[in-house]
Amino acid sequence: MRFTTERHLDGGVVEREFALGEIPGVLWTPASASAPVPLILLGHPPLGLHRMYPRLAARARHAVADGFAAAAIELPGSGDRPRWAAAEQARADLRRAMAAGGPVSDEIVDALVLPLVDRAVPELRSALDALLALPEIGGPVGYSGGLISVGIRLAVVEPRIVAAGLFAGSLVPRVMVEEARQVTIPLHVLLQWDDEGNDRQAALDLFDAFGSPEKTLHANMGGHTGVPQSAGQDAAGFFARHLLPSPAVPG
Amino acid sequence: MRFTTERHLDGGVVEREFALGEIPGVLWTPASASAPVPLILLGHPPLGLHRMYPRLAARARHAVADGFAAAAIELPGSGDRPRWAAAEQARADLRRAMAAGGPVSDEIVDALVLPLVDRAVPELRSALDALLALPEIGGPVGYSGGLISVGIRLAVVEPRIVAAGLFAGSLVPRVMVEEARQVTIPLHVLLQWDDEGNDRQAALDLFDAFGSPEKTLHANMGGHTGVPQSAGQDAAGFFARHLLPSPAVPG
Repeated sequence: MRFTTERHLDGGVVEREFALGEIPGVLWTPASASAPVPLILLGHPPLGLHRMYPRLAARARHAVADGFAAAAIELPGSGDRPRWAAAEQARADLRRAMAAGGPVSDEIVDALVLPLVDRAVPELRSALDALLALPEIGGPVGYSGGLISVGIRLAVVEPRIVAAGLFAGSLVPRVMVEEARQVTIPLHVLLQWDDEGNDRQAALDLFDAFGSPEKTLHANMGGHTGVPQSAGQDAAGFFARHLLPSPAVPG
Repeated sequence: MRFTTERHLDGGVVEREFALGEIPGVLWTPASASAPVPLILLGHPPLGLHRMYPRLAARARHAVADGFAAAAIELPGSGDRPRWAAAEQARADLRRAMAAGGPVSDEIVDALVLPLVDRAVPELRSALDALLALPEIGGPVGYSGGLISVGIRLAVVEPRIVAAGLFAGSLVPRVMVEEARQVTIPLHVLLQWDDEGNDRQAALDLFDAFGSPEKTLHANMGGHTGVPQSAGQDAAGFFARHLLPSPAVPG
């Protein structure tokens, strides 16, 4: 892991770009902290870190203000990372299906999402190795947002992730719904009730499928990008409960 | 309105029992406040104020700590208030249907809930008249919990109620689902995902029916009485956003 830039942002946040081999990433940490802080991995849709930067930086600032470090890495096939033919084909098929207003077939969803999950999750785990080796980051780790299928796989295979905040707002392969039954960590799932790109019943079925004894669904009005500010506050409370040390209880 | 007792509780809470004509009630207010505070009306199931007291008092203490007054009144036909024959019959029918493990018919639900709504809501509105006349209470008013059908009717007919936190955990007459379409105030709806006494799909349909542009559904694992502590924190955030003055924004 190689840091390439360092900027000090308002509010006591240090923002550093890094490269993990070929993979670019961004790390946000508190400018001053008396002890190593837990980490929130910020998921994001495969639209490129640059394009996602404003939203990621806003989420990261909140996370740092709440006592966390936050990090994001470029997804395979996004930003300046090499494309691969099958993924490009699947994206083209998806665009065609959506432009036609028809349903998106299981084949398209599988071709679009499954290879991305298979490639992204090992990279995220390598990023965790590097990030947790930094003296300023101590774990535990939460995963927040992004493609819910990536979150599902990470929650199943990566024991350092102890809580996840997921967004039921993307196309989910059927095999990932089955994989969701193996998830046992506490989950905080957001659903946009009128999400134009998302089948509400499928999202409710996915929530039901999660094996976690502690899971909560927060459904809000509006479309895909209409998540209200209060939803962010509730999610922050979720991560604080699960990642930060408990306040000492007077004995 | 006649106050009958006054107690000072830990945490700077004054608890006063009152009588509003024949109707007993309890009011919790901050022991010291520099200005009149908004009010949260605490709904509760028709099991009697005495039996519900521990849970009501716990909710009230949280409300007062958050900057509110809180009040509850005895429902018609509960506690020491006179029963009426039709309600007793409906309760007996409900017990019989549930003991038989069979579905509870629409007729039983209507007979159980609709007369209670028709009687309770005008009483709650009279209680609001009396409570809002007290110098220490200034409005606006929120309604929290209890029978969701009472919350629906109150939200439709009582303009002083500006936000409601409802519990999708009771039998709801079909006509109340229709009435829910007329509700327009911000809503925070709790659903226990595995509520043994509640049909999940019916609860989701009711949430969908509410006409409010701003509504949020928080679904948590567990049965009817298993609402997690975090759900209370999220609901407190909802009432704070809608009932407390906004923090001054530096110009």
